[in-house]
Amino acid sequence: MPDIQLITSQDALLNGHQHHPRLKPAKTWNIRTNSRNPIRSTLASVTSAPPSTTKTLINLGLGDPTHYPLHPPPPASITATREALDGQRHNGYVPGVGTSAARKAVADYHQRWDSVQYHEDSIVLTHGVGQALDLIFSVLFPPSHFERTNILLPRPVFAQYPTLLSNLGVEVRFYDCIEENNWEADLAAIERMCDEGTRAIMVTNPSNPCGTNFSASHLRAILAIADRHKVPIIADEIYGHITWSGPFIPLASLSDTVPIITLSGLSKRFLLPGWRFGWIALHDPLHVAGSVKEGMAVWANRFFGPSSVAQAALPAILETPAEWHNEVLAKIKLNAEIMHEAIKRIPGLSCTPPAGALYMLVRIDPDTFPKFHGDVDFCTALYREEAVFVLPGECFEASGYFRIVLASPADVMGEVGVRLAEFCNRHRRE
Amino acid sequence: MPDIQLITSQDALLNGHQHHPRLKPAKTWNIRTNSRNPIRSTLASVTSAPPSTTKTLINLGLGDPTHYPLHPPPPASITATREALDGQRHNGYVPGVGTSAARKAVADYHQRWDSVQYHEDSIVLTHGVGQALDLIFSVLFPPSHFERTNILLPRPVFAQYPTLLSNLGVEVRFYDCIEENNWEADLAAIERMCDEGTRAIMVTNPSNPCGTNFSASHLRAILAIADRHKVPIIADEIYGHITWSGPFIPLASLSDTVPIITLSGLSKRFLLPGWRFGWIALHDPLHVAGSVKEGMAVWANRFFGPSSVAQAALPAILETPAEWHNEVLAKIKLNAEIMHEAIKRIPGLSCTPPAGALYMLVRIDPDTFPKFHGDVDFCTALYREEAVFVLPGECFEASGYFRIVLASPADVMGEVGVRLAEFCNRHRRE
Repeated sequence: MPDIQLITSQDALLNGHQHHPRLKPAKTWNIRTNSRNPIRSTLASVTSAPPSTTKTLINLGLGDPTHYPLHPPPPASITATREALDGQRHNGYVPGVGTSAARKAVADYHQRWDSVQYHEDSIVLTHGVGQALDLIFSVLFPPSHFERTNILLPRPVFAQYPTLLSNLGVEVRFYDCIEENNWEADLAAIERMCDEGTRAIMVTNPSNPCGTNFSASHLRAILAIADRHKVPIIADEIYGHITWSGPFIPLASLSDTVPIITLSGLSKRFLLPGWRFGWIALHDPLHVAGSVKEGMAVWANRFFGPSSVAQAALPAILETPAEWHNEVLAKIKLNAEIMHEAIKRIPGLSCTPPAGALYMLVRIDPDTFPKFHGDVDFCTALYREEAVFVLPGECFEASGYFRIVLASPADVMGEVGVRLAEFCNRHRRE
Repeated sequence: MPDIQLITSQDALLNGHQHHPRLKPAKTWNIRTNSRNPIRSTLASVTSAPPSTTKTLINLGLGDPTHYPLHPPPPASITATREALDGQRHNGYVPGVGTSAARKAVADYHQRWDSVQYHEDSIVLTHGVGQALDLIFSVLFPPSHFERTNILLPRPVFAQYPTLLSNLGVEVRFYDCIEENNWEADLAAIERMCDEGTRAIMVTNPSNPCGTNFSASHLRAILAIADRHKVPIIADEIYGHITWSGPFIPLASLSDTVPIITLSGLSKRFLLPGWRFGWIALHDPLHVAGSVKEGMAVWANRFFGPSSVAQAALPAILETPAEWHNEVLAKIKLNAEIMHEAIKRIPGLSCTPPAGALYMLVRIDPDTFPKFHGDVDFCTALYREEAVFVLPGECFEASGYFRIVLASPADVMGEVGVRLAEFCNRHRRE
């Protein structure tokens, strides 16, 4: 093909064109795509220059309990998977929602730990909670040009929620969780924001990034609002049972009316985040959410569920005894205590004692550290000078804070405390 | 809460309402969802009544080579995965695009087998080709209310394409593959359908469901059209190298200009469909598709890639020797010959000899079988009377055909031929 096509007036006339002679340039490549990701640029700015210290890098960016191994994985994750591999009978396609045996195992697990009854038909296995979120959002928010829908999200927020929702044309409304109230949700805000277009309320408990463990009475108050407005709740409980201040209360165990769409998986409590193994469990006491169950089954066929080999091993993994979970929990609790003590002793930093999940959110007092322009600036300097990488609050719509991951061994936590203290001593206003 | 709220005229006045006294019913549950799936209802109709025969069910619905095990899995899929498990160092999060080692292994694999050079940065690992499709569609078709975009798909079509596209607001345009031309694409149709809104052309080779293996000259003709219109091609090559009539020619190996987005994975050639392990490889000889690479990296962070354990095992699995692949290929080729011979001997059925993939598409002559109202009716009767389950052409936009999967052991194939002959003998017009 020539780069330039000369169209003469005679050509134009023969082809019915009325234009004057002209040069028509050949088409050039111009591929437009979809690639928004605000957090990525925030993180890139924090790590844009390498640390200027010889200290070893401590990376507390991801909530990954295997990064500095906190504890060996559940023994069954090795033995049962090895057995499934050797049997050579678990390499084939399985139903989009997951195998019957694996879904039954999830139902049994929630019955045993949460005292909630599920039929296996109400369980869908997913590639981690990430795909569970995408799946349930796709079910609840059909593309529509004429209907305005919205969802209520907590703030501080797990950033993947708004990222996944950004392509669905749904309005995101944030209700604040208030640190002065132990990071409890602003109930008046939820009540006020619910309207005809509200399709779901998201409740993250225990919370990433707040480290909260909501009380039964607080959860009941949220349920009452949802019931009044007839809005189902998505309960992100991937940190379920990782609590040390009061028992963990599964939202579904309290609901006699409101449909609860619970998200959970193997990533956190079973220390297997790389396995990408999650699930959705639908609790629907009044049988009003049949369309959600149907929609989940249909959408599960878009990709199919997690690895067939892991599905075969799941029943054994979910029977990991309480003793193993307690060993892990004791380590996380110790980390929370070490970090809380360390923060308490650093003037200008403060935090609410975490009660669950793998996180604490630390407040930076702007008057004590006037030289830093917000949390991104603080975290960038901390990375450069002390080689400690933590996520700035901006990643969670929580300006003025940063998040510490409590999933590393205690000695790493202790070292983070020491470096934070040195850093703050250097930068505190005189 | 009372079920009914009585609003009196005094209340209304106090609250600024101008309405007459009325009964306002409390809200009731009304959860709307998104759950279209036309194929599901087709399949439900085929299997709505159980077989009336005592013959064993032969299920050739899914293209799953493990269902009736055709061949043992690659030895490395067991040994390398066991090693990764035992090491306990591969349970954590990995980058959304996949580990560097696994992406490098994919690049090496395509260099070795396809003679195409990729940098690991042009590879993204996905949960099977299903998620690869969803990812690349999401990158290429941003939601937009003001821009009309379209994609060209082959017909007969792998049904997951239009299913995944149906929520993206993109217009699907089908170009026919023509049985008389050995199922080659209608080039004039592709040329005619390309316009300013065309964002991609999908080429499925070897083809599900047609069983074709396109020649170099046919692929070059498609490339020339794409180059003229500056439209990238998505090359679904999950059946790549599963060919026995002529060599397999990777589309990327022929392109000096057009960006080729190749989809592949472990599901078919490595007999591991349940593992959900696929990838996208971007070949961009003119460096015009940087935005696609960037978009893929961003979207890969929505769910993260396949299991970290499988990623650790991938390099060893991809080095499975040619001998193993040849053993599998010989079995599929034999199946194709058995079924083609069987169909040839059944008056009223016909098919083009398959040359690749795991399928053949069989034509039902309507004049020979006037009692059946189309392929769904034919397949339903075949299921009931002979306990053979095959997908009707309607599932592939190929009315008047049905698809046979060639991935079962030869004796199963032979039995399908026998039952098909008996069935057709009973129902042929006298």
